[in-house]
Amino acid sequence: MHRILLLNGPNLNMLGRREPERYGSETLDAVVARCSELADALGAELDAFQSNHEGALVDRIHAAADDGTTAIVINAGAYTHTSIALRDALAAVPLPYYEVHISNVHARESFRHASLIAAGAAGVLVGLGTDGYLLALRAACGQT
Amino acid sequence: MHRILLLNGPNLNMLGRREPERYGSETLDAVVARCSELADALGAELDAFQSNHEGALVDRIHAAADDGTTAIVINAGAYTHTSIALRDALAAVPLPYYEVHISNVHARESFRHASLIAAGAAGVLVGLGTDGYLLALRAACGQT
Amino acid sequence: MHRILLLNGPNLNMLGRREPERYGSETLDAVVARCSELADALGAELDAFQSNHEGALVDRIHAAADDGTTAIVINAGAYTHTSIALRDALAAVPLPYYEVHISNVHARESFRHASLIAAGAAGVLVGLGTDGYLLALRAACGQT
Amino acid sequence: MHRILLLNGPNLNMLGRREPERYGSETLDAVVARCSELADALGAELDAFQSNHEGALVDRIHAAADDGTTAIVINAGAYTHTSIALRDALAAVPLPYYEVHISNVHARESFRHASLIAAGAAGVLVGLGTDGYLLALRAACGQT
Amino acid sequence: MHRILLLNGPNLNMLGRREPERYGSETLDAVVARCSELADALGAELDAFQSNHEGALVDRIHAAADDGTTAIVINAGAYTHTSIALRDALAAVPLPYYEVHISNVHARESFRHASLIAAGAAGVLVGLGTDGYLLALRAACGQT
Amino acid sequence: MHRILLLNGPNLNMLGRREPERYGSETLDAVVARCSELADALGAELDAFQSNHEGALVDRIHAAADDGTTAIVINAGAYTHTSIALRDALAAVPLPYYEVHISNVHARESFRHASLIAAGAAGVLVGLGTDGYLLALRAACGQT
Amino acid sequence: MHRILLLNGPNLNMLGRREPERYGSETLDAVVARCSELADALGAELDAFQSNHEGALVDRIHAAADDGTTAIVINAGAYTHTSIALRDALAAVPLPYYEVHISNVHARESFRHASLIAAGAAGVLVGLGTDGYLLALRAACGQT
Amino acid sequence: MHRILLLNGPNLNMLGRREPERYGSETLDAVVARCSELADALGAELDAFQSNHEGALVDRIHAAADDGTTAIVINAGAYTHTSIALRDALAAVPLPYYEVHISNVHARESFRHASLIAAGAAGVLVGLGTDGYLLALRAACGQT
Amino acid sequence: MHRILLLNGPNLNMLGRREPERYGSETLDAVVARCSELADALGAELDAFQSNHEGALVDRIHAAADDGTTAIVINAGAYTHTSIALRDALAAVPLPYYEVHISNVHARESFRHASLIAAGAAGVLVGLGTDGYLLALRAACGQT
Amino acid sequence: MHRILLLNGPNLNMLGRREPERYGSETLDAVVARCSELADALGAELDAFQSNHEGALVDRIHAAADDGTTAIVINAGAYTHTSIALRDALAAVPLPYYEVHISNVHARESFRHASLIAAGAAGVLVGLGTDGYLLALRAACGQT
Amino acid sequence: MHRILLLNGPNLNMLGRREPERYGSETLDAVVARCSELADALGAELDAFQSNHEGALVDRIHAAADDGTTAIVINAGAYTHTSIALRDALAAVPLPYYEVHISNVHARESFRHASLIAAGAAGVLVGLGTDGYLLALRAACGQT
Amino acid sequence: MHRILLLNGPNLNMLGRREPERYGSETLDAVVARCSELADALGAELDAFQSNHEGALVDRIHAAADDGTTAIVINAGAYTHTSIALRDALAAVPLPYYEVHISNVHARESFRHASLIAAGAAGVLVGLGTDGYLLALRAACGQT
Repeated sequence: MHRILLLNGPNLNMLGRREPERYGSETLDAVVARCSELADALGAELDAFQSNHEGALVDRIHAAADDGTTAIVINAGAYTHTSIALRDALAAVPLPYYEVHISNVHARESFRHASLIAAGAAGVLVGLGTDGYLLALRAACGQT
Repeated sequence: MHRILLLNGPNLNMLGRREPERYGSETLDAVVARCSELADALGAELDAFQSNHEGALVDRIHAAADDGTTAIVINAGAYTHTSIALRDALAAVPLPYYEVHISNVHARESFRHASLIAAGAAGVLVGLGTDGYLLALRAACGQT
Repeated sequence: MHRILLLNGPNLNMLGRREPERYGSETLDAVVARCSELADALGAELDAFQSNHEGALVDRIHAAADDGTTAIVINAGAYTHTSIALRDALAAVPLPYYEVHISNVHARESFRHASLIAAGAAGVLVGLGTDGYLLALRAACGQT
Repeated sequence: MHRILLLNGPNLNMLGRREPERYGSETLDAVVARCSELADALGAELDAFQSNHEGALVDRIHAAADDGTTAIVINAGAYTHTSIALRDALAAVPLPYYEVHISNVHARESFRHASLIAAGAAGVLVGLGTDGYLLALRAACGQT
Repeated sequence: MHRILLLNGPNLNMLGRREPERYGSETLDAVVARCSELADALGAELDAFQSNHEGALVDRIHAAADDGTTAIVINAGAYTHTSIALRDALAAVPLPYYEVHISNVHARESFRHASLIAAGAAGVLVGLGTDGYLLALRAACGQT
Repeated sequence: MHRILLLNGPNLNMLGRREPERYGSETLDAVVARCSELADALGAELDAFQSNHEGALVDRIHAAADDGTTAIVINAGAYTHTSIALRDALAAVPLPYYEVHISNVHARESFRHASLIAAGAAGVLVGLGTDGYLLALRAACGQT
Repeated sequence: MHRILLLNGPNLNMLGRREPERYGSETLDAVVARCSELADALGAELDAFQSNHEGALVDRIHAAADDGTTAIVINAGAYTHTSIALRDALAAVPLPYYEVHISNVHARESFRHASLIAAGAAGVLVGLGTDGYLLALRAACGQT
Repeated sequence: MHRILLLNGPNLNMLGRREPERYGSETLDAVVARCSELADALGAELDAFQSNHEGALVDRIHAAADDGTTAIVINAGAYTHTSIALRDALAAVPLPYYEVHISNVHARESFRHASLIAAGAAGVLVGLGTDGYLLALRAACGQT
Repeated sequence: MHRILLLNGPNLNMLGRREPERYGSETLDAVVARCSELADALGAELDAFQSNHEGALVDRIHAAADDGTTAIVINAGAYTHTSIALRDALAAVPLPYYEVHISNVHARESFRHASLIAAGAAGVLVGLGTDGYLLALRAACGQT
Repeated sequence: MHRILLLNGPNLNMLGRREPERYGSETLDAVVARCSELADALGAELDAFQSNHEGALVDRIHAAADDGTTAIVINAGAYTHTSIALRDALAAVPLPYYEVHISNVHARESFRHASLIAAGAAGVLVGLGTDGYLLALRAACGQT
Repeated sequence: MHRILLLNGPNLNMLGRREPERYGSETLDAVVARCSELADALGAELDAFQSNHEGALVDRIHAAADDGTTAIVINAGAYTHTSIALRDALAAVPLPYYEVHISNVHARESFRHASLIAAGAAGVLVGLGTDGYLLALRAACGQT
Repeated sequence: MHRILLLNGPNLNMLGRREPERYGSETLDAVVARCSELADALGAELDAFQSNHEGALVDRIHAAADDGTTAIVINAGAYTHTSIALRDALAAVPLPYYEVHISNVHARESFRHASLIAAGAAGVLVGLGTDGYLLALRAACGQT
């Protein structure tokens, strides 16, 4: 059975309030609810975690190695571009992960064009809005 | 009603025969068949076109402005990284497009990391194998 | 007697429909008509050719070596920035050429700032709208 | 009424002990005291917060969106140059902020020359010693 | 009625004497005379100014804001590549300007390839010899 | 007693008329008046000088070594980014100087991000509008 | 038995007419004749193809996978430096290929120094004039 | 008497489980035990601390200024390459430190080649496996 | 008979007062006197000119084309590194010139390592103190 | 009559023993023997020299100017990428030279992609194994 | 039994005399003596060699393949940063090697930050003074 | 009394024969003779040494520390641009040195623009032909 860890990084707790013209007005809670619903439909379990702390995200990824997680869907936010520690954490646990970005990072500042975690990802979904989480969930469950 | 143009660029006609350890053994015909099936299920129409000629791809995109196409799913292959002409063609027609790459281009040569068409895309899906086409199709039809 | 080849590259067939806020609403046919009229006034002949295919443009340039052409006015569009083949083709025929860009490429993306064909040109005219073709025609006929 | 959040990042708790030839011998407590005094004089309220944790600074900025803060004076220390998360947090709350650096970062290592948060700032004050906080406070209160 | 300011920068007073194999043997006076003649024919007025002093050119551009000038034709010479002050001056006055270079700067040293003023220009004409001034004059008068 | 030289570089004479959405509508005369007023209040003397000529600014800085000036407040405008001569002039006289920019240069073109004179400054104040001059004046007089 | 595909890219149809001081006066037909003669002597078969169209070259390479070709000798001309599509095509067919350049590309413009196809080649021969084709043919037949 | 702080950064808690082909199968506890043993033999005291949180590492380094620590042996893991905050923390306490990396970072991704803390180190030991900690301990105790 | 123009650029009027640990305590007048003395001894005439204005230096170089000057000894100071106008002026007059720098620019900031005028010089003398002028004078007179 | 100098640089004495999966198991003696045999067949003389010393290779090239050598076949090994001295030596003697590399340097580390001697070579042969020497010998003798 | 080759490159013969504030006053003979002593204690044999000649170092490394050497401790001095030949020589012999630098190269000129031989090393020890040799010796003998 | 070491690097033994249009037809022996003559006139002693071997030049510089040399005049030829070992050797002996280049290296390939030894030189003389040695000799003897 699929058990998916939905991981959100810094500032994603502000979803819905933060630059809505860019990120939309849906809150993170609403996104997680939509994902849970789809997970149910796909016969999977979903565990969601958000933190603004790089170390807390690293800790959570480590924990996933032992709690039955089968795949990770991760929007690492700003840490995507700066955190080698996250990259190393994802490499340290033997789980496939799917990288999601709500906005089209390729159309923004150049320092958002490169991702430190993309090379190891089982898939990268960019610019699809919050629907990107759902599509990643489908991919993680092998039900496209 | 959705009418999707599925566009494949250079060397994708070789799918299934070409570096199967990287691209899998599924042929392009099989991929198109899977996409048509899903399009049917989503109540959409699908038109598929492949060419190794940059100019032919540009011509086909122009034609999409007048043939009822509502969105484009495009894997521009190698032209992703070199063709400003494709970028301009996609900007010249008022249609959303979804960029797909079968392999994880971020884990390959550095000249494959940058895409000339990503900035204008409605979504970018990378490294999900041929399932990426299906997920893009879902996104293009707004049925995630 | 002057015999001018007016060469237009990729996406210029879309002139008038394509991003009119940038390129204006005049069609390519209208531009060619204006150029023909001026050519007549200057006592010159004009032959116009447009293609989205890099190879077709190269072929047309080669043909100009043998068909009495005395100068080329070329807007190579996106190929300006990517095609060494066009550069080599222009170097391969002993004809002066004038490079034209409708929009001000220097005010756009940085990859449009460099031209592979400018170094060999008898003149470069940028950002003057479609009037640039007329001014280039004047220069090519030595009637400024 | 002005309510200013005075935010200090990593290693600024060591002020007065840390490289005094560069940062002076005044402690952070003394700086905060001087700022509070000036805030009183300007009829403003001051809330000071220091942390070595990037995530804690992000959390504190988020909180400022809801606690009546009218402006932020921030010395992000080393995170100035590395934290896109801080940049995003400052962009996520609709408050003007003033960036302060005690030492002249332009006269130090090149990796200190670029600031990830400067582009969004309402003002940047560099190299004025701890007086920079006071001048930023004046600016934040519109009483120059 | 059109009133054109013809502005020439450093070393252009040496025209005709200076590297004639590159710039030709026509003097600046002769060029100005040819321009005046064409201006007459186009029903425009022409005012010519040359200086080797960056500040003097800035002053002259400022003056153009108040003396009835309708457009500027400028060959900024070497300052094209080094003077942000000229760029700012041209941005400070609400007049269209046309950038001219006698020689083909794209075929010379790489530091001559970039122009600090091109992005704001209403047109850029390069490598057409002194005829470039005449063509720019036509463009500035809208009589191509 | 403090004697401050207020130095303004190229195009700042256009203040109030030039791109008012960026620089505001206050004229340079008004700014100088506000500074003089504050100088009086701080018991200091103020001498203001503006020029569009790099050499004239260098000359004025040299003169400051002998006329009793105790500090310089300088907005070098565009020369900030291009003039090693100004940098050398400021290094040649034994006076502290404060660098001011009205707009936030970090949010503009990349060639405005680096300052040739910042490394030697006693303080740098950026993006605070014309209030930056007043705050610099306070710093120069040690009355924050 | 060896069956060699001799592939020539853009502008090589102009051989003999094009910049003869660089490429010599021998035509492509003459080169092919010399190669055929040597192929005969080596007991090999030779098939020659030239095109100015990138897509046509890609198509021809694909065809070589099924027509008994044992090795490819390719002078990709300008596409050497710009065509990832050619690189991918050569990687898609399981045949050794030998890269030839008539002129010494290392002594020309810097954009000719890097080849996108060299890394996968069984050998690279540069600057040997048209004799390079013959030597490559020898290598392809293992008869040095 | 020597009192050594053994500091380990992000993901080093996973030692033994994480990519064992690169980092070996020895756990962090085992490494600490070996170090303690050697410390005893050298007549030194050892205090070990690991955290995935950049801020926690900064806090611990600050504490070392007051707890009798005489030297630090630090493997900052991924933060080696990204944390100016750690660099500043190490500079803020007057203690020599020895930088250790288990794997040979010079043989890995280029972003691991530069260390932000190396310039201030009393020694750097790279690629010696977990033995590197022991050798650093010897150096820190002056007993090579 | 030799007639040498001794040209000094920005800030060299401050010689003797300006950073004496770098430039020595000899004034420019003293240097000129020493040069005149040597010129006499070599049977040459010397004309000295200093300006902080780039345009004034350009004007003076132009004048040298007509006043009997046979060679120029120039220390362009900061303009060495920024003035293409000076480079063009020196190229515009048919006179050999010798570039002098008092301090060793190669041991200073990297922006002082490149000279825009060195490529055209008949000789470059760096770091020899004010003796460099004398040696350049010898070279200019062909009496080494 | 042809007299060829076969020059081998550093580490090529280890051929056959050194990384045989890359360089093959043939020794340098065997290669020289094969070359001598071919030289005989072509009616040429061959002189072989190998050294690990840059200076010794330079000396040997100088000697070739006076000993009747008609062409040089050189595999400069690692010095290819670092030795301007070798480049200058090859330029100092009026002999054509052919550059050979056994392995495909374009498929190895990026510092092996650029050759300091290629620009002056009469031909460059890369990646053909030790057969490259034989093909170069043919070219040097004009018997392809 | 361990047999260690202690290799020192250019200028290390000057140890003790050369910039003693950077390298200390211990001579190379004294360092070798200390190493021999430790080798004895560890039951190993030590052979020391120094040369200023790149070729001589390459020759000595080749010899180590046949003289019973089990590991190399090498301080390649300046050649560390410039010699691909040394890198190739170390790769050509099947022996582990340990790279040592007396001073902290990361705190010096940027051209000393990169080592051409580090990627292949069994360990790199930097900035530990001459004690670095002893620690490397321990590592080479597996007795940490 | 002055004792000058005149050091010449690789390929300078070919002076007079090597590219005479660049280096002149004077042989090295003739240059040394002219220098000896001037040395006599200045009451100095001259010792000349040339080698194509980097190590031999390093050895000779070391020897100069003990043989009464008071200054070095060095033309390091190609090693100027590649040899950190020479730089270190010159830094290791407490003698002033003067760097000479016969041709104007600033007008040649860009890899000749930077010198590794210039920063430490007491003077650098470039492009003065062989007269540069004489002027350097004067400077070294303090008799300008």
